[in-house]
Formats: sequence, C-alpha cells, structure tokens
Amino acid sequence: MKIVVLKFGGTSVGTVDRIKKVANIIISYFRKRYKVIVVSSAMAGATNDLIKKSKKISNNFNLSEHDVLVSSGEQIACSLIAGRLNHLGYKSQSYMGWQLPIITDGKYGSSRIVEIDKKKINKFLKSGGIPVIAGFQGINMDKRITTLGRGGSDASAIMISKFFKSEKCVIYTDVDGVYTTDPNILKKAKKIKIISYEEMLEMASLGAKVMQPASIQDARLNRIDIDVKSSFIKKNGTKITKKKNILSNKIIRGISFTKNDAKVTLLGVKDKPGIAASIFKPLSNNAINVDMVVQNISTNGKETDLTFTIKSEDLIKTQKLIKKNTKINFRDLIVDNNVSKVSIIGVGMVTTPGVTYRMFQALAKKNINILVISTSEIKISVLINKKNVSKAISALHKEFKLNV
Amino acid sequence: MKIVVLKFGGTSVGTVDRIKKVANIIISYFRKRYKVIVVSSAMAGATNDLIKKSKKISNNFNLSEHDVLVSSGEQIACSLIAGRLNHLGYKSQSYMGWQLPIITDGKYGSSRIVEIDKKKINKFLKSGGIPVIAGFQGINMDKRITTLGRGGSDASAIMISKFFKSEKCVIYTDVDGVYTTDPNILKKAKKIKIISYEEMLEMASLGAKVMQPASIQDARLNRIDIDVKSSFIKKNGTKITKKKNILSNKIIRGISFTKNDAKVTLLGVKDKPGIAASIFKPLSNNAINVDMVVQNISTNGKETDLTFTIKSEDLIKTQKLIKKNTKINFRDLIVDNNVSKVSIIGVGMVTTPGVTYRMFQALAKKNINILVISTSEIKISVLINKKNVSKAISALHKEFKLNV
Repeated sequence: MKIVVLKFGGTSVGTVDRIKKVANIIISYFRKRYKVIVVSSAMAGATNDLIKKSKKISNNFNLSEHDVLVSSGEQIACSLIAGRLNHLGYKSQSYMGWQLPIITDGKYGSSRIVEIDKKKINKFLKSGGIPVIAGFQGINMDKRITTLGRGGSDASAIMISKFFKSEKCVIYTDVDGVYTTDPNILKKAKKIKIISYEEMLEMASLGAKVMQPASIQDARLNRIDIDVKSSFIKKNGTKITKKKNILSNKIIRGISFTKNDAKVTLLGVKDKPGIAASIFKPLSNNAINVDMVVQNISTNGKETDLTFTIKSEDLIKTQKLIKKNTKINFRDLIVDNNVSKVSIIGVGMVTTPGVTYRMFQALAKKNINILVISTSEIKISVLINKKNVSKAISALHKEFKLNV
Repeated sequence: MKIVVLKFGGTSVGTVDRIKKVANIIISYFRKRYKVIVVSSAMAGATNDLIKKSKKISNNFNLSEHDVLVSSGEQIACSLIAGRLNHLGYKSQSYMGWQLPIITDGKYGSSRIVEIDKKKINKFLKSGGIPVIAGFQGINMDKRITTLGRGGSDASAIMISKFFKSEKCVIYTDVDGVYTTDPNILKKAKKIKIISYEEMLEMASLGAKVMQPASIQDARLNRIDIDVKSSFIKKNGTKITKKKNILSNKIIRGISFTKNDAKVTLLGVKDKPGIAASIFKPLSNNAINVDMVVQNISTNGKETDLTFTIKSEDLIKTQKLIKKNTKINFRDLIVDNNVSKVSIIGVGMVTTPGVTYRMFQALAKKNINILVISTSEIKISVLINKKNVSKAISALHKEFKLNV
C-alpha cells in the first residue's frame, strides 16, 4: 500500500468547521486505500495570538521558551483533527514532535529536521490508523522543543514524505495552486498545472507565497513530487516536480514581482579592490538583504557608480550605515523608494535565444523604463518604477503567451 | 538549601499582567534563598475554550485526544512565566510532563501521578535555575499525554512536593484562604489560619472550592504542609497541616453547606435483607451519588421508611430508576427538591461531649426543622429546608464562636 502525506495549513484548519471539512478530505484518501499521514499547522491566527502575548511579556522573549509557546498551536489542531476522525469511526491519533521523536539540528526558531524515528508511525499505519503529526516542531538532543520557522509545517511535510518514502505529498492551502502571476494584479493569470522545483523556487522567493522556499529546496533534493491544492474548493492544483517531467512548450512559466523594494545608488565611489565588500559587510552584519547589484564599469579606472536594491523597510538603516562607514569614499548617495522588481521565470529560456530581447522590447513598447537588470539561468529580472508594475506584467504575460 | 513548590491557578495566570505579577512572587521566594519549583495551571478560560471546541467536533470526543488538546493550555502559561523570569534576568525554563517525565497510571482525563523523574529538575535547580513545570499533565507508559482531572494542577503540586521533599507547598489562588464559612452567605465569616487535612477535606468536599479534595488527601498521606494564599493581594493565607500542629481551642472550625440537594423518601418499603443494596445498586450504576441515608426502624418488622439525599440534577433520573426497579416494593415515593445540608466541622468534637446537642438547640431556637441527621468523627451534618440555610449558618457561627 502506498503512503500519501497530506499537509494542511493554518487557514485550512482555521475553524472547527474547517477541521470537519479537512477530516472529510483525509477520509477520501484513506478510502482510496492509501496509507495516510496527516501533517497540520496551527489554526490560523493562533500562532500570531501567542506571539502577541510573548511580546507583552518581553520585547526580547527567550528563544527556547518562544518555541515552547508557539508549538502549542499545532497540538490543538492535531488533537481536534484526530478527534474528528475518531468521531467518524476512523482510527486516528495525534503525534507531537517529541512523541516520535522528530529530531532537529536544535536551532531555536529556525531548525531543520535531521531525523525522524519512524517506528511508532509505521506501527500505527500498519494497524489501519491515520496518524496526525504536528507540523512546525521537533525536539533537539536535550529534549527541548524547537520550531522550524515561519511556514515550517511545509518543511515537516516534505521531510516526513522523505523519511516515509511517500508516493506523494499534498500541500493543502487557501489558494488553489500556483498562477502565472498574481491574479489580483492580472485577471488573466492562469493556473500552472505543472512546474519544476527550480521555477517554483524562483516564483516563491519572489513573492508567490504558496510554499516556504526552503521546503521546495528540500523537496527538490529528495525528488518528492508536491501537489499544491485548495482545501476550500475541489479543483486540480499545481504539481511541483523535476524538470524532466515538464513537457510544456512554454519558454516562460510565470511572472513574479516584489512590492516593497528600494534602490540605492552610490555615485563616484573610489574604485579599488574590495570596495564592494566594504560597502556590503556592515549591511550583512545588520541582517539587511541586498538583492540586485550593478556596478558600472569605471571610465577612468578610479571612480565607479554602484547601485543595489534592498527591502524598503531597511532603507533608513542602510543610509545610516553607509554614511557612517569610514572605509568607503563616494561623491553622492541617491535613493529611490518607488521601485519594483519584475521577473520572468522559465527553465526553457536557457536553451532559447532572444528571450531577454523580447522582454525589453515588450516593456519599451509600453514606455516602461528599466532601471536595473539581473539575470540567472531560469530568470530575468528588471527593476522598474513601482507605478508601472501592473502594465509591465500585463505586457509580459501577453508577450510570452501565458494566458493561452 | 530548601525547596519550595509554588503552584499558580488559572486566575492567577489569567492574563499577561497577572503572569508578570506571578513572576514577581516567584522572585521574592528565590531571593529568600529558596530553591523554587513553579507549577502552573492554564490561563483561566483557556481550558474551557478548548473543551468547547472539542464538543463542536464530537459529542463524544476521544478521551486520549481530549488530554492532548486540553494539556496545551499549561504549555502556554509555563512558557510565558519562564519567558518573564528570563526577561527579568533569572534563569528559568518550562518543563512539560513528558520532558521529565511525569509518569501517571495512564487513565485519560483522571490520572494519578505514580512517578516523577527528578534528574533534570535537580540539575537545573543546582545550576541556579527556576523550573516551571506544567500542572495537570503527565504521560503514560506509551508516551501518550494523560491529564489529572479538573483542578489537577493541585495534584501536580502536591506530588512534586512529595518527590522533591519540599519544605513547603504554596497554592496560589484567587481567594486568600479558607474561611469558617462562605463570606458571601455570612459577612462575619473569618479566615482560618491553620486547619487539619481532615477538616479541610470535609470543608472541600462539602463546597469550599479552594483545593481539589484528592490533592488534600495526597498531602495528608505524604505529610506535606500546604499554604493556601491569594496571588492578588499580599496577605497571610491558610495553612493546611496535620492535626498535631493545630493548637486551636475551638471545637468547631468551620461550617459548610450544599446548594443543590434533593431528598427522596420511600415509604412502606418491604423490609428484608439486602433491600438497601437493591435500591442503591442501579443508582450507583448510573453514576448517581447517594449522600445521607436514613432508615427508620420498622415497627412491625415488615415495613420500613428509607430516606436519602442526592444532587438535585439527578432527581428525575433517580425517580425513574426507582420506579422501574422490580426488585423493590414500596407504598409511596416522596421527593423534596428544596433541601440543603449544613455541616459543622472540627477535629475537636470527637473529644467534646454535647456538640450535637448544642447544634440542635441552636437551630431549634431559630425554629429550623431538621429533616435528616448524619454524623462522623469530625463532622455533624443536618438536612434542612433550603430557605433556612443562611439563618442556620449564622446561628451556628455564633453558637460555636467562630467569629471571635
């Protein structure tokens, strides 16, 4: 008999009524003669409520106790799901991280799962039971609770799929799949039936909040097929799988964008070896993430202009850090808080010439000015004025025929 | 260094502000150079909210999963207390039942603690830490969570006191001690400074809801002194200790009463051996608790009258069970749903003659009719009409000089 892992996110188990619906979904798999392992997040809102409490207790709440606190939410959701399955006549039992145990690398607040003891679950599955495992949590070697970071229940589901060699892993959420772009921005956005891990990673980290990027990476490394589906409506979702399985003739699979970026330009920087490192080290030390970086070729070999993007919320801090940085010398500092990064993504582009040209041409036709460009094997990103985002997405969606 | 166990009830940790106050109380003991072990209940209301959810999921929620569900409340309270102590610069850590572990007899919903592994706590105490242990919970031999029943955090505190041989166990609650009677009924009620386990047991099971009776019994068996105190106001509370320590010259220590009793009388019961058992067996099988029982001496050796009391809520069920009971034969069934039991309690009465007379005399003077009487070594109870309860308590309080 084959194993399926079903993971339910916070909104999917957000109310008692939702939990009843989720139980019915679980049963539908069980009736298809799957061995079903359920992984659940906390009920939507529960974790945020707990975090609020912790902030009232301390503005610097102990990390270890924070993990004890927030992991209680999954305990509630899992016991209610198991209780519902029992009520409907199915054998089910909840399992917290410590009960298997699920062993993590021990980092509070952002652990990774390193080992899962399978004995209890295998025994329970063999007896015809449906185990409901708490997502988001494990324990370290000292038996202290450690959590996996925001969206960590995805990581739980993927690692459980890996250890139990599940046939598939279904991520139930409140969206019905991954779209070519955000349907709120472009109505014509279409659901993607199948997408590669690599493309999904680019989509996820660029703003498509369907799954935690680290989990997609784990799935890729372990070759685990993922179905992303809605627990609210019965519809086919999006399958995330390896490149080989993708038989699409589309070069570009999706368009993603950011909402809150800022551009920083240093004019007339004294050009000497190690200058970029001198600029970026203090930012990195202050947990400021630098995204796109462009350094102009210096015309005289002495001065250069350096442009980079950061999150808008980091702009003030960044300006301060640069101004008090004695290791660098520059003529002027220009910032622009009204920019967005728009990216086209597709594994096909690496073998298809002319994609960059088509992108630039499509934007030019709409009079959209490109401020910065960066490219990778499966992605081309341009920085544009925020006011042009919607127009740009529409133009690119049409150019690469994503709505057909 | 001596160990003190501090237990905080649900209202004591009911809000974030309350938890901050509780942390200060804990620190005041720590500064007196005690080794402090904290035991906490769930935040007030939390457990009831969870039970409500479980009832929406199933009218017959799985007992084992119910224990998983409701034990999450203590996890939240304990991590917040430990987090607060950390914030204030004290080393503290929360411990769930499974982390020690605390082993129970395994009965879901009403377990008793059979063993506590002391290693981790002793090590933590030795390092100068303040452990915060979740009350109400333990695990069984299969590592499933089991809870100790309503008010079970008291049981946790007492058993932790026993295993760690604590010098004292302080039960912090929302009342400031045990009173001679309910201050809501009689304003002149006085706080009792010191009371024996036996007296407290009679007070507790008769309505003074300060501590779970089973915990008082555990404390008595293990000779653990208990201080009952308020976490809301700084005042001396009530000490519960062994008889020997009580140097009071009062014969009677307190007056308790019930609110919802019913009296059932069977007239003209055919008097033969085993008749009482025939009457009470079906009641017992239906979880109906029979309290006072009086059987008149049969005048002719053939017929007798039998009177007993039950909880009001069981009256209808009791009447049905008696009427369909084919093993008994009686002339008439009379019920009275307007009765209350008033009891005077004191370990001194066993060596003092005339207590019963004084009680009856005091009630007679106020024209209060006694319906049923029952006595034990340290308690005399009378059943009276409900409307006379307040008058009776006042008269008895005066007669036995409880307000001086």
